[in-house]
Amino acid sequence: MKAFVAGVGMTRFEKPETRSWQYWDMAREAGSAALEDAGVTYGAVEQVPVGYCFQPSTAGQRAAYELGLTGIPVYNVNNNCATGSTALMLARQLVAGGAADCVLALGFEKMKKGALGGGADGGARGGAADAWSAVSPVARHYGIMAARHGFEATPPTAQIFGAAAREHMERYGTTEAQLAAVAAKNHRHSAHNPNAQFRDVYDVAGILASRMVHRPLTRLQCSPTSDGAAAVVVVSQRFASRRGLTGLVEIAGQAMATDTEESFASGSCIDVVGQPMSRRAARQAYERAGLGIEDVDVIELHDCFSVNELLTYEALGMCAPGESGKLVESGATTYGGRWVVNPSGGLISKGHPLGATGLAQTAELVWQLRGTAGERQVAGARVGLAHNIGLGGAAVVTVLRAV
Amino acid sequence: MKAFVAGVGMTRFEKPETRSWQYWDMAREAGSAALEDAGVTYGAVEQVPVGYCFQPSTAGQRAAYELGLTGIPVYNVNNNCATGSTALMLARQLVAGGAADCVLALGFEKMKKGALGGGADGGARGGAADAWSAVSPVARHYGIMAARHGFEATPPTAQIFGAAAREHMERYGTTEAQLAAVAAKNHRHSAHNPNAQFRDVYDVAGILASRMVHRPLTRLQCSPTSDGAAAVVVVSQRFASRRGLTGLVEIAGQAMATDTEESFASGSCIDVVGQPMSRRAARQAYERAGLGIEDVDVIELHDCFSVNELLTYEALGMCAPGESGKLVESGATTYGGRWVVNPSGGLISKGHPLGATGLAQTAELVWQLRGTAGERQVAGARVGLAHNIGLGGAAVVTVLRAV
Repeated sequence: MKAFVAGVGMTRFEKPETRSWQYWDMAREAGSAALEDAGVTYGAVEQVPVGYCFQPSTAGQRAAYELGLTGIPVYNVNNNCATGSTALMLARQLVAGGAADCVLALGFEKMKKGALGGGADGGARGGAADAWSAVSPVARHYGIMAARHGFEATPPTAQIFGAAAREHMERYGTTEAQLAAVAAKNHRHSAHNPNAQFRDVYDVAGILASRMVHRPLTRLQCSPTSDGAAAVVVVSQRFASRRGLTGLVEIAGQAMATDTEESFASGSCIDVVGQPMSRRAARQAYERAGLGIEDVDVIELHDCFSVNELLTYEALGMCAPGESGKLVESGATTYGGRWVVNPSGGLISKGHPLGATGLAQTAELVWQLRGTAGERQVAGARVGLAHNIGLGGAAVVTVLRAV
Repeated sequence: MKAFVAGVGMTRFEKPETRSWQYWDMAREAGSAALEDAGVTYGAVEQVPVGYCFQPSTAGQRAAYELGLTGIPVYNVNNNCATGSTALMLARQLVAGGAADCVLALGFEKMKKGALGGGADGGARGGAADAWSAVSPVARHYGIMAARHGFEATPPTAQIFGAAAREHMERYGTTEAQLAAVAAKNHRHSAHNPNAQFRDVYDVAGILASRMVHRPLTRLQCSPTSDGAAAVVVVSQRFASRRGLTGLVEIAGQAMATDTEESFASGSCIDVVGQPMSRRAARQAYERAGLGIEDVDVIELHDCFSVNELLTYEALGMCAPGESGKLVESGATTYGGRWVVNPSGGLISKGHPLGATGLAQTAELVWQLRGTAGERQVAGARVGLAHNIGLGGAAVVTVLRAV
């Protein structure tokens, strides 16, 4: 059966300790917004997959109970930075498989300021790296890469993404200016997003002039540490029809890929940070949707670091391997171009609360496909694609289609 | 569609630091055993829900990668002490909904010796309590109960279960000897289980004479801290037929219940520790299976503390409220009685590695329903029931039927 997004909601993403909220406060805010957007009450929800990484076991119940004490199943899920879309993937399958007609996917993260930064005060890189360093297939091959690329024994994520960026530059002639162009674009997009953690605009020179985190990635090319929540209501066709729900968006195709030997066999940091996972997830999602990258209008993708946006252009088939630097420079991935990538500002400027990110991407795409994205609206958007990846690892690609 | 268990496996449960293994070692051991038992290779597995509470995000990938790097979806799930059955519940729904024909549910826990004990050196009580104390609907009502029952502000789980036991004694005249009889039975059963952490036999006097953990619960009435893993292969009918799999057990009915106002409204500790959740989960599972407690032969239930076995007898409908002490004393829940409860030795003597427990219960029941449980075999067992509960909270009841 088909599954549809009926409602979405999110909090504004915030620098940790900006608001005095607990994770259940943010979850209530996002969850209530999604339910209201869908036009249903919590009483109609039959199951709740909840995504987060840093809160204790059954934090999902603590959060969902804010919306109601209805006794329904709650699943707490995590997959590092791909946690939000993991909750969405379960929600979609529960609806598509007929186990439920209305499922709420909820995601949140309350992060510690600086606690995860591995030296830099930006983002998720440290948090993911903690788990990442415990993951053998990565660790197993890490010795080789550490020697080859000259970084410390257990790197914060910034180091491994920095190494991937250098590898791309060496192999394809990608420039620091092209990497910075990704960040300049996403910061510029975020200026129109009231939910974004940052809304400041920077040019390429300003991006390059910001503090170096790990060569060649400067601070403004790295996603920050963030608090925030997002939620998505997934429903069946019969549920939507019976209740006369409007504003539906179809989940046309979705896939999760995890690591294979390809991630590690080459010793390439581009492979280790997940480009092969992203490529496989995209291929499967296209196949299930019966659509291709040529059908897509708007994309929210996992720009945890500027380089990952470039790697993802290639993984999604937007350009040939090595051509991504030129693609962003050409303007093909911003307003007026072939696709608009990260109209929300992306992880770099909107923020990256791990459990919420995948669901917030969905929220942005739903607004875009409904034509209600305001100043960020991508003209005539009919098909959207979300890409969310976590080291350790999981890549989730979701193709959404306006109904 | 129907879903079937095709294979099960588990490690021996061990006191932490007994074996020098990592969580992925135990997962490989249990997962390989389950696949071998099913007669399938990891290459046939399409999705992997993995349950654990204390390992980092994407530990499930780290574990599953030991079995193969096939790139399939991995979901890391947690629900405190009900984590293992949460993974099973997702596996069952993925198969029943047609999303996959073969799903491996994997669960493990590597726990720290004494680290969770809240003063006592037994069990999961401390671990669950950490999360539990963060859960508002409990915390919200906790002040009342703390005052009413006279314990500290943030109790280890033993305190709240101890209070529930005292409440049962005061309300129904249940005796300390009846509580101890639960533990004596389960320790006795474990003598025949090579996978059990403890295999020593104690009589009621010996149980009562062991160190007091929290009145009236003595040490031998509390589940220990444990390392271990368990795994279950869930398949569709068509997959089983195509491959000629044997030894199938049908998942006839299953339900997860979470808290409702009923858990807290009364201020009763019996309600707070989850008897109402268990009752609702059982009712739903019976309805879905088209079976009742009268059809059940063998039960694995969540005896984290002796009192919880008594509370669960009532929740499952084995006796009227208040009659559970007499029921265990009558011998109705051991070999030769109406049901055999916890033939494996239960959490109290088999051990309780949080992520593994729900799946290990399934393993025991599958062996019982196949008639391959050796010295522990319950004669003529055709229908089994597993009950797994986590404070915070979730109760999962699964009804299994021999094919």
